[in-house]
Amino acid sequence: MKVLITGIDGYSGWPLALHLLGRGHEVVGVDNFVTRRRVREVGSWSATPIPSFARRRAVVRERLGKDVGFYRGDMTRWAFVRDVLERERPEAIVHLAEQRSAPYSMIDVHHAVATQVENLTGTLHLLYGMRECCPDAHLVKMGTMGEYGTPNVDIPEGFFEVEFRGRKDRLPFPRQAGSWYHWSKVFDSGDVMFASRIWGLKATDVMQGVIYGIRTPEITDDRLLTRFDFDETWGTALNRFIAQAVLGLPITPYGKGEQKRGFIALEDSMQSLRLAVEHPPTGPEYRVFNQFDAAYSVNELADLVVRVAGELGLSPRIEHPPDPRVEAEQHYYTPLHDHLLGLGYRRTRGLEEVVREIFRDLLRFRRRLEARRHVVMPTVQWRSPDSRAALAARAPSSPPPPPTGTGAPATEGPTA
Amino acid sequence: MKVLITGIDGYSGWPLALHLLGRGHEVVGVDNFVTRRRVREVGSWSATPIPSFARRRAVVRERLGKDVGFYRGDMTRWAFVRDVLERERPEAIVHLAEQRSAPYSMIDVHHAVATQVENLTGTLHLLYGMRECCPDAHLVKMGTMGEYGTPNVDIPEGFFEVEFRGRKDRLPFPRQAGSWYHWSKVFDSGDVMFASRIWGLKATDVMQGVIYGIRTPEITDDRLLTRFDFDETWGTALNRFIAQAVLGLPITPYGKGEQKRGFIALEDSMQSLRLAVEHPPTGPEYRVFNQFDAAYSVNELADLVVRVAGELGLSPRIEHPPDPRVEAEQHYYTPLHDHLLGLGYRRTRGLEEVVREIFRDLLRFRRRLEARRHVVMPTVQWRSPDSRAALAARAPSSPPPPPTGTGAPATEGPTA
Repeated sequence: MKVLITGIDGYSGWPLALHLLGRGHEVVGVDNFVTRRRVREVGSWSATPIPSFARRRAVVRERLGKDVGFYRGDMTRWAFVRDVLERERPEAIVHLAEQRSAPYSMIDVHHAVATQVENLTGTLHLLYGMRECCPDAHLVKMGTMGEYGTPNVDIPEGFFEVEFRGRKDRLPFPRQAGSWYHWSKVFDSGDVMFASRIWGLKATDVMQGVIYGIRTPEITDDRLLTRFDFDETWGTALNRFIAQAVLGLPITPYGKGEQKRGFIALEDSMQSLRLAVEHPPTGPEYRVFNQFDAAYSVNELADLVVRVAGELGLSPRIEHPPDPRVEAEQHYYTPLHDHLLGLGYRRTRGLEEVVREIFRDLLRFRRRLEARRHVVMPTVQWRSPDSRAALAARAPSSPPPPPTGTGAPATEGPTA
Repeated sequence: MKVLITGIDGYSGWPLALHLLGRGHEVVGVDNFVTRRRVREVGSWSATPIPSFARRRAVVRERLGKDVGFYRGDMTRWAFVRDVLERERPEAIVHLAEQRSAPYSMIDVHHAVATQVENLTGTLHLLYGMRECCPDAHLVKMGTMGEYGTPNVDIPEGFFEVEFRGRKDRLPFPRQAGSWYHWSKVFDSGDVMFASRIWGLKATDVMQGVIYGIRTPEITDDRLLTRFDFDETWGTALNRFIAQAVLGLPITPYGKGEQKRGFIALEDSMQSLRLAVEHPPTGPEYRVFNQFDAAYSVNELADLVVRVAGELGLSPRIEHPPDPRVEAEQHYYTPLHDHLLGLGYRRTRGLEEVVREIFRDLLRFRRRLEARRHVVMPTVQWRSPDSRAALAARAPSSPPPPPTGTGAPATEGPTA
């Protein structure tokens, strides 16, 4: 199958390309390298050294004997999106090319607007492009479990049967997102659902849980590694906790730490996206998959990290800073996730073994963590309309020593 | 009370300014005159001649002895929005400055993107500006009943009690909008709800029904008239039906014509907005008002227009063209609307008397309708990704005769 991956240079996009190539699919990608730039903007970088995209493609040719098609460009440019779809006419499109950080969207008004405008515009361009150039293609669009928030009832997969004042209907499950970023994903979902309705497009809307891990079976070479973000803005809680343990810093679940979320291993997220791609709706349909494997609280993650760190001779302590977000710190959380199981999804990686694997990798790239140790603690505050000053002030007064050896900064530039 | 009206030059904004002035409030407005430009873009104009905004203000000074504060500018410019809020520090803000046409948003990809990006950006700027400059102000934000779509259950005011799989919660009522424009309003609602939650802002989200009428008690002079759009893009179904009757054209309910919507007279919409302004939440709160008076089907509107036309010696016939929209043509429709009644809302104008009044006005401005008679029938198709050619092709091959007397085009330019 010919699959277009938007955001192919990203954390999920790159391993997905490798996974789909390994399954015999043809892969074409699009990226504007904005995540690389924006991680630099907040003074951070990937713990794993990331080669330029051109180098990534060369390694794929060398190791797999296969080529990845690529277009450098921006989804907010209509002519670019239409041109790619017209030339390639993919059978499936996995749309990952979005600003994906909640804290980044909360920095100030400009980051809020950029997040919502870019995400929404890219998705609209893709929908119109599909309608015009490949109306039978299947769109697999990346959403987030965070669209639902934390309601006091079970969370179904997109739709639920409602009884209200004596009548019944099947309705979209209400969304209660927790950041401008999460709302941008809600907006995308609305637009995709509507486009599917008016134009008969086939779409799978993936409510993605938090992904953990750096490796998939296809990553057989350090030069094929995907990125690992550990700063407050781009890193997940689990990533930051492991980085803190490696750096000898306290592990910092925000607030009470009883915030629960759905999680899935990188490898199993790739499995899930591939299952969605290989099992498209047979006709016009908008369907929703809750794509996670198990739910954990932030405290459970912290305890696990402490335990695994102990095995490695590290002894981090746990501290609870005030929660910079506005969210329930203790709540009910029971999302359903049957659709992927129905397509044959099986867990291949559990949380604990992946945490061990991440520790092993981060210990190898410890110098890259050391050089950016000031980026782990939160400065972006949900209650503040402008966190730019706090973000700028956290930089060490003297710049970090230039790292040498593995992962010199030059390897992370968008030189593809 | 000092009230800022964004979109003060618009169909609702202008009579709201007059109404609030009449109630003794101080009024400051913002507009970029984009609706005037965009109505010209689709080859139409207001049936009522609309003076420049500078002239409108002069007439207000002459007739009411009062001044309307005014800033010309665009809500998508952050510096402009912040500057206005910083100077004025209003106690209430009625946010009407949005692209408000569903068909306009469906013309093509560019109109879709412009609608969603402008509406969302303006609202985000306003929210950040309030947080920074006037966090105790009360935002009255214009939404639409169309956000809810036409579910098979009653439609509550924003939130409802849900029982799902044995547990209960109060959740936002699901939105199922029917155009890119309607989705943009859903997105605004999400952002306002979220801003209220994280920053404690006071907000009333008005799910506005379709408004009918040109006149309010404060419009005592033709020079104070608000606009009346009758083209397929900017005019409501009722407006188009009355224009068709006056022009001797068939009246054209789309499809089966059993689409039901909530309606309210212009004067009563102004009453409702004023009630919201004068009764703000006492503390941080996001509340939703369903702002309509009664629900009618499109066929009921058509029948009423035929009956009133008959009284005036006109005898239009009814035709049912295929529905250019994608919508249920027969459906359940029972929205609730108790909140405004609780604040003292009482209907002052019924549909039939307002339809008579509109006929009287349109007969006076008949030459302005005649000059644009080609704009009434639908060309923008929901199922097509690009209706520009159809829209352009409907213009008469020879340009319409330049109208003389009342309502020369020059009076509608943004010369304020």
